[in-house]
Amino acid sequence: MEVAILGATGLVGQSFVRLLENHPWFDVKYLIASQRSKGRKFRELATWEVSEEIGEMRIESLEEFDGNVDLVFSALPSSIAGNVEEKLAEKIPVFSNASSHRYEGDVPILVPEVNGEHLSLVEAQREKRGWEGFIVTNPNCSTAILVISLKALSKFGIQRVNVVTMQAISGAGFSGLSAMQIFDNVIPYIEKEEWKVENESRKILGKLENNKITPASFEISVITTRVPVSHGHTEAVFVELEEDPTVEELKKSFESFDPLGSLKLPSYAKPLLYKEIPQPKFHRDFGGGMTVTFGRMEKIEEGKFKYITLGHNLIRGAAGGSILNAELAHVCGIL
Amino acid sequence: MEVAILGATGLVGQSFVRLLENHPWFDVKYLIASQRSKGRKFRELATWEVSEEIGEMRIESLEEFDGNVDLVFSALPSSIAGNVEEKLAEKIPVFSNASSHRYEGDVPILVPEVNGEHLSLVEAQREKRGWEGFIVTNPNCSTAILVISLKALSKFGIQRVNVVTMQAISGAGFSGLSAMQIFDNVIPYIEKEEWKVENESRKILGKLENNKITPASFEISVITTRVPVSHGHTEAVFVELEEDPTVEELKKSFESFDPLGSLKLPSYAKPLLYKEIPQPKFHRDFGGGMTVTFGRMEKIEEGKFKYITLGHNLIRGAAGGSILNAELAHVCGIL
Amino acid sequence: MEVAILGATGLVGQSFVRLLENHPWFDVKYLIASQRSKGRKFRELATWEVSEEIGEMRIESLEEFDGNVDLVFSALPSSIAGNVEEKLAEKIPVFSNASSHRYEGDVPILVPEVNGEHLSLVEAQREKRGWEGFIVTNPNCSTAILVISLKALSKFGIQRVNVVTMQAISGAGFSGLSAMQIFDNVIPYIEKEEWKVENESRKILGKLENNKITPASFEISVITTRVPVSHGHTEAVFVELEEDPTVEELKKSFESFDPLGSLKLPSYAKPLLYKEIPQPKFHRDFGGGMTVTFGRMEKIEEGKFKYITLGHNLIRGAAGGSILNAELAHVCGIL
Amino acid sequence: MEVAILGATGLVGQSFVRLLENHPWFDVKYLIASQRSKGRKFRELATWEVSEEIGEMRIESLEEFDGNVDLVFSALPSSIAGNVEEKLAEKIPVFSNASSHRYEGDVPILVPEVNGEHLSLVEAQREKRGWEGFIVTNPNCSTAILVISLKALSKFGIQRVNVVTMQAISGAGFSGLSAMQIFDNVIPYIEKEEWKVENESRKILGKLENNKITPASFEISVITTRVPVSHGHTEAVFVELEEDPTVEELKKSFESFDPLGSLKLPSYAKPLLYKEIPQPKFHRDFGGGMTVTFGRMEKIEEGKFKYITLGHNLIRGAAGGSILNAELAHVCGIL
Repeated sequence: MEVAILGATGLVGQSFVRLLENHPWFDVKYLIASQRSKGRKFRELATWEVSEEIGEMRIESLEEFDGNVDLVFSALPSSIAGNVEEKLAEKIPVFSNASSHRYEGDVPILVPEVNGEHLSLVEAQREKRGWEGFIVTNPNCSTAILVISLKALSKFGIQRVNVVTMQAISGAGFSGLSAMQIFDNVIPYIEKEEWKVENESRKILGKLENNKITPASFEISVITTRVPVSHGHTEAVFVELEEDPTVEELKKSFESFDPLGSLKLPSYAKPLLYKEIPQPKFHRDFGGGMTVTFGRMEKIEEGKFKYITLGHNLIRGAAGGSILNAELAHVCGIL
Repeated sequence: MEVAILGATGLVGQSFVRLLENHPWFDVKYLIASQRSKGRKFRELATWEVSEEIGEMRIESLEEFDGNVDLVFSALPSSIAGNVEEKLAEKIPVFSNASSHRYEGDVPILVPEVNGEHLSLVEAQREKRGWEGFIVTNPNCSTAILVISLKALSKFGIQRVNVVTMQAISGAGFSGLSAMQIFDNVIPYIEKEEWKVENESRKILGKLENNKITPASFEISVITTRVPVSHGHTEAVFVELEEDPTVEELKKSFESFDPLGSLKLPSYAKPLLYKEIPQPKFHRDFGGGMTVTFGRMEKIEEGKFKYITLGHNLIRGAAGGSILNAELAHVCGIL
Repeated sequence: MEVAILGATGLVGQSFVRLLENHPWFDVKYLIASQRSKGRKFRELATWEVSEEIGEMRIESLEEFDGNVDLVFSALPSSIAGNVEEKLAEKIPVFSNASSHRYEGDVPILVPEVNGEHLSLVEAQREKRGWEGFIVTNPNCSTAILVISLKALSKFGIQRVNVVTMQAISGAGFSGLSAMQIFDNVIPYIEKEEWKVENESRKILGKLENNKITPASFEISVITTRVPVSHGHTEAVFVELEEDPTVEELKKSFESFDPLGSLKLPSYAKPLLYKEIPQPKFHRDFGGGMTVTFGRMEKIEEGKFKYITLGHNLIRGAAGGSILNAELAHVCGIL
Repeated sequence: MEVAILGATGLVGQSFVRLLENHPWFDVKYLIASQRSKGRKFRELATWEVSEEIGEMRIESLEEFDGNVDLVFSALPSSIAGNVEEKLAEKIPVFSNASSHRYEGDVPILVPEVNGEHLSLVEAQREKRGWEGFIVTNPNCSTAILVISLKALSKFGIQRVNVVTMQAISGAGFSGLSAMQIFDNVIPYIEKEEWKVENESRKILGKLENNKITPASFEISVITTRVPVSHGHTEAVFVELEEDPTVEELKKSFESFDPLGSLKLPSYAKPLLYKEIPQPKFHRDFGGGMTVTFGRMEKIEEGKFKYITLGHNLIRGAAGGSILNAELAHVCGIL
């Protein structure tokens, strides 16, 4: 299938390109970005040693893109993603990393290992909007990493979750943070991030019934911070469960968590991996950046636990998650 | 009064020296360190432009130190602090940053703004041990920063506290962390740190009655991490209170928290300061490193709040806290 | 004397404010910045715990500034400094950190320890332009640090200089570099920097005769790079001299270099200090940020030497250098 | 062929393992390290997601290693490499990253693109020492990167070279630098490094005649510094040539430099690649870490040029270079 990547020059866009360089199902036909980059060879802008074929491709502008592909991956900034994606979805599937449509009732925020069943919502979406295509979103980077372990915990009944995130610089985009701001610093504020993690998590872990998602009812409170790490978001989690498993039972549940194991999706990787001390520098690239690591799991008291989890914000947290969504859509026959 | 600094060459020891360079009450007479540094001028080892007078002082070894001063400040590693401090305490007051004696029943862990009244425990200590001197400890760096805001919250009745710390590199000592370990990384593990913060906090906020401290009864669970920041520990706090104040009431309580305001201790600084977004790089040096900053305070639901607090780990969290203890002891007439 | 600081909110502007907070001669009357910051209290923007007095001052806009002071310090960006400074110089002395006027024939680039005599050029400047005031510039940060040691070398006859700089992040301004650009990176390019260092050095070490500066004739070639250091520029220097001193003679010449020693200027500090291994983290603040450190001095062969030198880019390299210029001008009676 | 890696747990050792994971010619049979790591699975120590096969291999101790392989790659520290390598070389080829034997008259310091012909020295070495095996060394990391461009320049006649290196943290080994030392700092001193680069470069670019290498006669002076970059050494070079090419001619010479192009060695990559602004973060991994990047090339005056070059210190500068040496030895039939 031929695909286009919208916003191909930003950090998430470039991650899409890198992950799709040799994809067995999706062939990159167009690299779309702003007027400013139009005409330039992708090699000039790539932050890694890109393949000959992709390196020679010239960036095209969004204005001139006619949508003549089988599907698009969108890494557009939310300021412009909204309209653009709607227009394209009239005709073709749009897998979007943008936050623009995530909160709409007929648009799923998809993480295949967690709520693959929400994909069926696109039927109602198409019908309601009269579209041939559709929009499927992946969550905010911190959310994507968090919900993997929350899903593995859900069978014990999640009552409340308190999370503190330590997010990497790349999550802010190439120019999102000045060096003077973040070098030798912790910034305990990321605009709208806490709201996103709290609300997206409840939607993703919510129940789809009659084409409507009822958000999960657990309480969740998040503090998001930025730390001087290049890639990889680390999350410190306190969770209260209805049941009272042992730490061993929890670890076993996490380690055996593998809902897509049999599907053989190209981007598949073991979703949850135990590491004694998870660290972004050493573990962010596991599973090609799709594996979420967990560790430091301890019981505080009856039903109350704490643990650390982390994942690659540009891959599991963005481009990789979106590509996995498209792969799931493909095997489900809705592309 | 003449003082000696034990462990004068380490990061905490050097902080003691720097803070005492022009102290109105305490005059540094001896700089004590290991055999290895013996005889060297302090200037050769100082990590800042030390004054002429102190720079010319020669390091003396612990073995040859006769304790011929009015009091000592100890920045010895806990592996050797235990015995050394006990021996010195037979004769003179020891203000120790080490963890060795913190947990003994007759030794206070002192933060003047929080539990200045625990200082009276030294009477029982002297009597019990037959000492002329005594040992007063300051807490672990993360604890010292945390308990300031917990004290300001205590009037609302603290039920439970969940904390995630993001601790600076200097907290590990000059050679405690290799560059490869922490550069571009978050290490969500600091040996024994979580136990220390949990237990010290409860002791510090506990009640002294009949020469015995009953630890505070609130639940506290901590996750400690190390981040690539030079100085300054940042702490993300979730707290559950018995009462249900508004955020404004809490902020007011914090901003007006100033128990030592009238004492005019030389190291005094406003203990709690509001900053919209507290950041170690910009706020760690406020109040000469003694002021703890707080911000990002929000109500989650009834009685439940989250906020950020931070402080300088070497000053409020170590040397400065210890010097303030000695200043309090002085005005209380027990030196 | 009453002074105004133009561009008070940028990194250099804030350094001016910080250095002038308690200046014995200069009293900050106005803090001038762009329309965007107008009306805000300086405390809101300061990156340090500013004094009560200065913290309460409100920023005023450039457009509304009437120049009603005894002199101004300018930290304006060169894009707007040119015209603004000329207009002000019609009436009052302007001490400028901007590059706008540095290369004009009647404007000195002043480093008091090096070419204090060039100050006399302002007479010709006033006359030629019909001004009551004048413009005196300080050099580019890397230049200021370099010329101190070059001056100490000049008596041996400098033939050629090759320099590689490793410049700190703050030299690019608060938002000049994105974190993704410089974190974990070396950027061997700083726009126009090499030209500036080469040409300014020759002018500063040049000879003033008949109101014309003849640049020094030595050859100088510079490679400028940016490194992930917060403050402090490090410079690696290869120099070829006409004479052939020993390393000891050179070190002695450097260590005894102290042309302003007797003047007792408020910002005075020993200009050149030997450190075995100069390092920005540990030595940038010596002499209040005015002392330039040197070390690692070795003879390569006859007449050829290499050494390391470093200084604080915002203080010696910018605001401090400019203030020292004003102090020199004051004792020379030209203010 | 079966190989063993000595010192497999250090940063260079792990690089050897990573590069040999799927090598078409060399099969890793033993992972040798100190007694302390003996028996542990390599996965426990690996700093990346190592393959199943290699991950399951258990570390063996040096003392118990019988040398029963076809050749060894040595990443031993030079403190123990000397004797160990000699003993092994009695029987099998040793490709060593250690400095221990580099300066012996019958041991080549090999960089295939530069002095592949020096490999023939091993014949004389074997004969002289009565060995069945031999020792071939690769240079110090900074040297390996430098000599690639020097070789491309050599046809113009190199008279003198002045270099300033900015070396990455990983070059010091996993625990070689403390975070407090290098974070936010430049350390302009690396023990023995300058001597190594100067002497190794002359030997590598020297002429082999009658089994004796006459070092190249150009003058070379180096200043080595450590900067806060994880991987990748950047080098700023001033060079004086006998001839006076244009910058275009030099760039052409560099870009066309490809001596091994036809050999099809498995680790082959284009040795010299032009980048407008070479940066370690973005370019260290080109050519799988074997490509050396150059840029910022400018003519200073007749015959005098400056440029920037950089390479991956663990790959081109260490393990990769050593493996390429073994590959060359293999096609030359001397293994």
